[in-house]
Amino acid sequence: MKINILGTATTEFGELWKTSPRELARVAIQGALKDAGKRPKDIDALFVGNMLAGIFGNQANLGSLFCEELGVNVPASHVEAACASGGLALHNAINSLLAGRYNTVLVLGVEKMTDSSQDEVTAGLMAAGSDEERQAGVTFPGIYALMAQAYMSEYNVTEEELAAVSVKNHFHGSLNDKAQFRRIITVEDVMRSGKIADPLKLLDCSPISDGASAVVISTETSKNSKPVFITASEVATDTLSLHDRQSFTTLSSVVRASQAAYKKVGIKASGVDVAEIHDCFSIAEAIATEDLGFSKRGEGAKDIANGRMTIGKGKIITNPSGGLKACGHPVGATGIKQIVEITQHLRGEAGARQVRGAKIGLTHNVGGSGAIAVIHILQN
Amino acid sequence: MKINILGTATTEFGELWKTSPRELARVAIQGALKDAGKRPKDIDALFVGNMLAGIFGNQANLGSLFCEELGVNVPASHVEAACASGGLALHNAINSLLAGRYNTVLVLGVEKMTDSSQDEVTAGLMAAGSDEERQAGVTFPGIYALMAQAYMSEYNVTEEELAAVSVKNHFHGSLNDKAQFRRIITVEDVMRSGKIADPLKLLDCSPISDGASAVVISTETSKNSKPVFITASEVATDTLSLHDRQSFTTLSSVVRASQAAYKKVGIKASGVDVAEIHDCFSIAEAIATEDLGFSKRGEGAKDIANGRMTIGKGKIITNPSGGLKACGHPVGATGIKQIVEITQHLRGEAGARQVRGAKIGLTHNVGGSGAIAVIHILQN
Repeated sequence: MKINILGTATTEFGELWKTSPRELARVAIQGALKDAGKRPKDIDALFVGNMLAGIFGNQANLGSLFCEELGVNVPASHVEAACASGGLALHNAINSLLAGRYNTVLVLGVEKMTDSSQDEVTAGLMAAGSDEERQAGVTFPGIYALMAQAYMSEYNVTEEELAAVSVKNHFHGSLNDKAQFRRIITVEDVMRSGKIADPLKLLDCSPISDGASAVVISTETSKNSKPVFITASEVATDTLSLHDRQSFTTLSSVVRASQAAYKKVGIKASGVDVAEIHDCFSIAEAIATEDLGFSKRGEGAKDIANGRMTIGKGKIITNPSGGLKACGHPVGATGIKQIVEITQHLRGEAGARQVRGAKIGLTHNVGGSGAIAVIHILQN
Repeated sequence: MKINILGTATTEFGELWKTSPRELARVAIQGALKDAGKRPKDIDALFVGNMLAGIFGNQANLGSLFCEELGVNVPASHVEAACASGGLALHNAINSLLAGRYNTVLVLGVEKMTDSSQDEVTAGLMAAGSDEERQAGVTFPGIYALMAQAYMSEYNVTEEELAAVSVKNHFHGSLNDKAQFRRIITVEDVMRSGKIADPLKLLDCSPISDGASAVVISTETSKNSKPVFITASEVATDTLSLHDRQSFTTLSSVVRASQAAYKKVGIKASGVDVAEIHDCFSIAEAIATEDLGFSKRGEGAKDIANGRMTIGKGKIITNPSGGLKACGHPVGATGIKQIVEITQHLRGEAGARQVRGAKIGLTHNVGGSGAIAVIHILQN
């Protein structure tokens, strides 16, 4: 059975002070339906990816809630996996099609973060970590800083090389009219930005964002002249805490999920043309580039610094949307936005940031510090 | 493909002050594995039903978290649908088997509620409702009281007849060593208990509870001498808010999901021998009895009062576990506990509360005031 992407849409990502979660969802849902040429009554079920609505807004029951924005009361599931909530919602939606239960379902990723104070957001995001990490007072910048320290030491990588990840992603973001940041930055800008958790600086970190993205998937054939299929949807987990891992410089969940995905599709990493990577911090993309097999161990940051993943220069283009860093990171939406972005490239509809000739795309969505990884492969 | 229940387990439900959520989960997981004759490494994936860990404990990423208690890092999904989180987690788990993705998965329902203050619990549970309901200051006892007022007026039902629901469920709970309340009560006890939201009194309301339940389901055949299968798993949604509904005396989500389930299995409501009902309030069971087709409209409470759903007296036995009222209602666990209970009856292992000759069982798990309903049918 083929899983067809019939339609996709995303809101602008950013600090959308005037927009409610319901309105974000509505815009994404209506956009995806329109792109799919479908009406609400054509949708058999809804899957929602969201992490923080309960913690920030005391709102649960999100399946039923967002059915109201879809406009029909269909079976609906809210799926949570911290920052991989969007990807995991899609995974469960795909299962429902493969199970033969539905023909066409809509997957919504949505997050509203800027209505809460910075302290609330910092505390809320630590829900993705463990009791021990919270009790130790560590935050996610701190956790990823530990990974960056280990990585730089183990592979003799400089802060400037890590900074190149953000430089690339801001360049890509400058080409994306949905991106939160569309300003080109330099390595010097990153190096001069305020230290958050040594060696990570402000411009090594993805922002706090609002946004929603949606995708209509179906067992029906797409009417688009360049149809796109999801050919692999793989999930792997790891310990919740970083301190329980054998290595700080690889995420085994990513290695296992991506290897399973490559095997499923029958390709090697080198077969991927374009990938959306979960770059919550610059170090995360450097390590992911290696865990996904795009670079050799220790060479991820260096390859990025050398332009090997940049639009117009590289062979495997990573984060053409601008990634979490420049496009923004409304956590529940991110995994679905990645699908929206890759679909645009495989359709040849990505405009100024089009990866030419892209035929195979990958999305890499991670929850916590690698406690869960969700990998999707999309093909024409 | 047949969905086999290989093993089930539940912790005691109650005010388990000394037990952490992780420990609750561990006990339920290990119990279900033992009952199934399986080891952790035999489990291909984990599904977790939970509503409140984020809101009460700032803990998300529950799939990965509870993999640590399972002891293996397998693909894991946290599914939330307010008080129907357990049932909906099972539904998504069943999809994953039907999709051919896994052979054997474990579904965990878990909730820890007593670590929070009463005010926190009252506010937290309103996460299952809508913004408008929260802003109006209404709580779930208030919402169900509105339904009770409408029901009593429409069908000329007395408070004493509603009270009979709790009397039956406390009698059943007295036979269940996992139940939070094992004390037999009378209609007079209910009538004398403190008014919560007119006409609902304390003993019309399910308690605040801690607990965890788990079930191992598989495409493999069970080795139990009386194997149990899940033959239908149906979900329907409705508006989040009660005020958006046409009627206060029926939950259309329950009617639609149960009709779909009966159709799937090829039975009528009268074919059901035993059912676990989502009796968050006495009125909820009265209405559910009618929505499920066990009683005629307006006769649910009267039928219960007349003993037609009581062990040893009735033809269709409802809530042999004691239901949410007497067995307890740790919200994410409830939908799985219902499966555990029905499985015991179909195996003939329910001891003093055994429903004799039970061959077809049903579970009815509801989120919010009927915003979502999840119906499962189990058969030998």
